[in-house]
Amino acid sequence: MEYNIAVIPGDGIGPEIIREAMKVLDAVGRKYGHNFSYTQVLMGGVSIDATGVPLTDEALMTAKNSDAVLLGAVGGNVGGSNWYSLPPHLRPEAGLLALRKGLNLYANIRPAILFDELKAACPLREDIIGEGFDFVVVRELTGGLYFGDRWTKEVDGLRTATDTLVYNENEIARIAKIAFEIARKRRKKVCSVDKANVLDSSRLWRQVTKEVAENYPDVELVDMLVDNCAMQIVKDPGQFDVILTENMFGDILSDEASMVTGSIGMLSSASLGEGKLGLYEPSHGSAPDIAGQNKANPIATILSAAMMLRYSFDLDMEADRVEEAVRKVLKKGYRTVDIMSPEKTLVGTDKMGDLIAQEV
Amino acid sequence: MEYNIAVIPGDGIGPEIIREAMKVLDAVGRKYGHNFSYTQVLMGGVSIDATGVPLTDEALMTAKNSDAVLLGAVGGNVGGSNWYSLPPHLRPEAGLLALRKGLNLYANIRPAILFDELKAACPLREDIIGEGFDFVVVRELTGGLYFGDRWTKEVDGLRTATDTLVYNENEIARIAKIAFEIARKRRKKVCSVDKANVLDSSRLWRQVTKEVAENYPDVELVDMLVDNCAMQIVKDPGQFDVILTENMFGDILSDEASMVTGSIGMLSSASLGEGKLGLYEPSHGSAPDIAGQNKANPIATILSAAMMLRYSFDLDMEADRVEEAVRKVLKKGYRTVDIMSPEKTLVGTDKMGDLIAQEV
Ligand SMILES: CC(C)[C@H](C(=O)O)[C@@H](O)C(=O)O
Ligand SMILES: CC(C)[C@H](C(=O)O)[C@@H](O)C(=O)O
Repeated sequence: MEYNIAVIPGDGIGPEIIREAMKVLDAVGRKYGHNFSYTQVLMGGVSIDATGVPLTDEALMTAKNSDAVLLGAVGGNVGGSNWYSLPPHLRPEAGLLALRKGLNLYANIRPAILFDELKAACPLREDIIGEGFDFVVVRELTGGLYFGDRWTKEVDGLRTATDTLVYNENEIARIAKIAFEIARKRRKKVCSVDKANVLDSSRLWRQVTKEVAENYPDVELVDMLVDNCAMQIVKDPGQFDVILTENMFGDILSDEASMVTGSIGMLSSASLGEGKLGLYEPSHGSAPDIAGQNKANPIATILSAAMMLRYSFDLDMEADRVEEAVRKVLKKGYRTVDIMSPEKTLVGTDKMGDLIAQEV
Repeated sequence: MEYNIAVIPGDGIGPEIIREAMKVLDAVGRKYGHNFSYTQVLMGGVSIDATGVPLTDEALMTAKNSDAVLLGAVGGNVGGSNWYSLPPHLRPEAGLLALRKGLNLYANIRPAILFDELKAACPLREDIIGEGFDFVVVRELTGGLYFGDRWTKEVDGLRTATDTLVYNENEIARIAKIAFEIARKRRKKVCSVDKANVLDSSRLWRQVTKEVAENYPDVELVDMLVDNCAMQIVKDPGQFDVILTENMFGDILSDEASMVTGSIGMLSSASLGEGKLGLYEPSHGSAPDIAGQNKANPIATILSAAMMLRYSFDLDMEADRVEEAVRKVLKKGYRTVDIMSPEKTLVGTDKMGDLIAQEV
């Protein structure tokens, strides 16, 4: 089969980690007889430098016409750039938001896994880690405060800024369904997170989620307030299977969750919509401080590529193979600097990619 | 001197912990020759049961006319109550929000301290704890999503809910000043947390905070995105001195911060406005599961009373005395069950209060 992948290296360490993910995809292609063809797309700071905007209409079109999008990272205060003196809608991140909205990728899936081999990197005490943890944050990605109307103007002589948080029942129902579907294939527990003691949108969220839950009698639904959830992720992450939440809460909680694993260089993410087209990117950022130094950990991007094989191309076996290859390379003791520990073998970005590709 | 304190025991463990705080205040009064007089005020579930609303106008008036308000906790699914089947504006928490707004308490101050004696309770790994940490979250408390307009209605045939997040420059400037004033008496670092890459209100927040900072050249100001801050609190809490943020982000981050200390039963909070009148309450909730069992840790409430002595009554020496008494009792090995560890002496709520009062 032939698969067209729109590849967006982006900024900072983006190009280096994307290169390794492509290396691993090519190894998968050779082994299983698939043909992955890549179209490079500009987004973020590099796009601003080349075109003046963080995402051109043509770039969005290319992404739309692809079978899947693989993204490195965008933005960050890359030395010498002045991207952040531009107005907000022209900054690197605006490209990412436009891409999510343009492709209608309303479901962001971010696994928070404590890798057995990397327990030592987890910032939590051993007895809290317990048997380890493995949960998924399902974050609504095209609604809420991110895409509501906003304005700044003088009111009674004072500069006043307003953002709006809007959700309708359809937007809530479709993301809730995704969470329940995922939970069904896992430990069958959805924890829906909101602030229903304050927000109207959260009360609607809670109600619609409950309605959706009626179609999933085999899945348990629990509601949790966002402040409590922020505590529980630290106190007892093992209690979670699938966390379902709206855009802004999901931004905060999913980052907290990745940090709690201690292995943010390992965590992948997928953003999905109605069809098969998805956007796959590491959970971490563009890390401009180590860009171009062959130090970045490409594993999150490689595992994102595995998610792409699974969700967009239905290549489950191939996805398993990549995930297994990662585990084997870790087991053999190879580490990039972010996950290095005593008596392990330190390797650079490219070497890590080589090893995983070989293992495939 | 005579000080009039409005006392709100509230729900769950509220009455038990408030009783111990009053015991300690009385000891302070006897020792230093102050007269603390208490007026009991109903709020939360007990007020709903007695009056039908979570805070009556008279109750608010009594609080307004006091020198300070000491609060236990409100709400929680206390057995047998059906407070949560009431419409939102009649639920227990609505009383707390009405009190904050009614007294114009726009500044919530929540210390996140790792107590030396309780390091074992901290969920973080020892090397991350390092020398320990001691920071303060300064949360805006009467604006943002909590108090903006909200409505739920049909739009294009779909149930649609909207909340609004509004800030004007004055609301931002006054809370920023509080953060800078506090930082000035500490390690002189303010970390202002926002989501300026998405929200208009955050961009205004960042700008006004910077303007305020010009009057505090001795204090360092750093901006941080909220998702990153949620990570940094787990990764390296020792980096923070004062975290300044808006209402909803502050709700999430301050709870995360208290959990990271591992001693939520120890953490006090103060909510302040323009004058000397303040509201003092533990950071934890009403813990209905242990209510009435003499198990609750009264220390957070006792330390909140100490904050009251300091901020509302300017009784710094007396406040120091209370804080020292708490430390001494901990050093002698007394523990309530939430902070119990091997070879320590387990005591109940009342005994803990007695010990601290004696020590004063
Ligand atoms: C870059 C930023 C706009 C983005 C977000 O807030 O969604 C990022 O933090 C993320 O989580 O993917
Ligand atoms: C009870 C609730 C409305 C309140 C809030 O969200 O402010 C609480 O969580 C707090 O932090 O004091």
